[in-house]
Amino acid sequence: MKSKRKLNILVSNDDGIDAPGIYALVQEMKKIGSVTVVAPDKQQSAVGHAITMNYPLRVKEFKKNGKFFGYAVQGTPADCVKLAVRAILKCEPDLVVSGVNHGSNTAISIIYSGTVSAATEGTILGIPSIAISLTTYAPVDFRYAAQFARKLALLVIKRGLPHSTLLNVNIPPFKAKEIKGVLVTRQGKAVWNDTFDLRRDPNNREYYWLTGGLMKVDTDLDFDEAAIRNGYISVTPIHYDLTDYKMFETMKKWGVEKLK
Amino acid sequence: MKSKRKLNILVSNDDGIDAPGIYALVQEMKKIGSVTVVAPDKQQSAVGHAITMNYPLRVKEFKKNGKFFGYAVQGTPADCVKLAVRAILKCEPDLVVSGVNHGSNTAISIIYSGTVSAATEGTILGIPSIAISLTTYAPVDFRYAAQFARKLALLVIKRGLPHSTLLNVNIPPFKAKEIKGVLVTRQGKAVWNDTFDLRRDPNNREYYWLTGGLMKVDTDLDFDEAAIRNGYISVTPIHYDLTDYKMFETMKKWGVEKLK
Repeated sequence: MKSKRKLNILVSNDDGIDAPGIYALVQEMKKIGSVTVVAPDKQQSAVGHAITMNYPLRVKEFKKNGKFFGYAVQGTPADCVKLAVRAILKCEPDLVVSGVNHGSNTAISIIYSGTVSAATEGTILGIPSIAISLTTYAPVDFRYAAQFARKLALLVIKRGLPHSTLLNVNIPPFKAKEIKGVLVTRQGKAVWNDTFDLRRDPNNREYYWLTGGLMKVDTDLDFDEAAIRNGYISVTPIHYDLTDYKMFETMKKWGVEKLK
Repeated sequence: MKSKRKLNILVSNDDGIDAPGIYALVQEMKKIGSVTVVAPDKQQSAVGHAITMNYPLRVKEFKKNGKFFGYAVQGTPADCVKLAVRAILKCEPDLVVSGVNHGSNTAISIIYSGTVSAATEGTILGIPSIAISLTTYAPVDFRYAAQFARKLALLVIKRGLPHSTLLNVNIPPFKAKEIKGVLVTRQGKAVWNDTFDLRRDPNNREYYWLTGGLMKVDTDLDFDEAAIRNGYISVTPIHYDLTDYKMFETMKKWGVEKLK
């Protein structure tokens, strides 16, 4: 941190502004800066990088324990960060932190993740950003994850992140002393073995419900999913240049120019 | 095409099953294979890679000109492709084609795009996939774009695509003879200069509405956005491994292991 000015930190999530994970995160972030919370007014998991273009966005002040906590947006996590930076905040934040998500965001799940998309939107807007998730769906204490986010945030402020790179962090749901360490990882290769349950509603009309789990394919600790499974915190640098550069070169020999 | 078996082609989009772009695409795809349409029942632009996990998915048979056209899903583009492959289709398709989108999907817009997410979902499920967009919002004839999609589809079937790579195609809204050619491109660097209009509804309550446009930053024809602007069709190979490998190496020297 070169300047002594207080850090301005924007906090968002996808579990909704009333979720325990964002509350724990805010408590920790307040120890290192001035925090503004702009988060969805309700659960927005698996919305991917959705933004709202065809509907108005409404914002409400949200209280927690009788005190102003933050701005609740009737929109997606990406909406929240965009709206915060472009309309709500008086000055650009130094950092965007999204989470603490209740559930993992590793491997293929990254592209479905609202938590990651809030941090991605921060990065698109030119702000160093971190997404943080606790890899369990069971009721859990978010404090250790939030503390880790605080420590990583200070390291990010000190070191800086390259333009268009964000950090995706996953934390195993163990006590501090049971966590084996912290690993820099890459996005895992695992995909979902999803299936659809075909059911009938009370009016005898059919509907489908998505179910399934992430397949365990990675064993190398270089991968986020394997690191987590083996008791490590995973920190994956991700970006949003989706170009497949190897294929970019290969395809030049395909003769696509003849297709016109 | 090694086998003489008829190609099975899954067609989806994000403009909705009743959009003219998907109709034109289906007419062309029928010339090279057996087509199944599974598409959102209404417009789903900018939904990103959202999937529906917390609600049931309903499917209706949709007629066009009095004849069965396809399956309309009360869900996102990614839902449609997942549901088609896992539940509706009797056998796995040889190809997923998403489009023809009414509007461009270049540069940063790729990560917000429902059109691209349908093709991405196809790739995740192991099926060669193409997203195709016509880069105008004006009323337009989709036939040339659909014809190009057909020709590219045959090339993809012949050459194959690497596991986890899809093609994102954008076509300028010109007549065939005015199109300068076809270029293999990379994802542009342009982002949106978005702003929010603050308005008041009839009940005097405030709301925001997102507005803005893609900034023109790329000039090199290697970039999708520049290629389009200069009258070329752009074909960008993209993937969903979001790892920033350069940063993956750099961060190993950050000392994150000390943060535990």
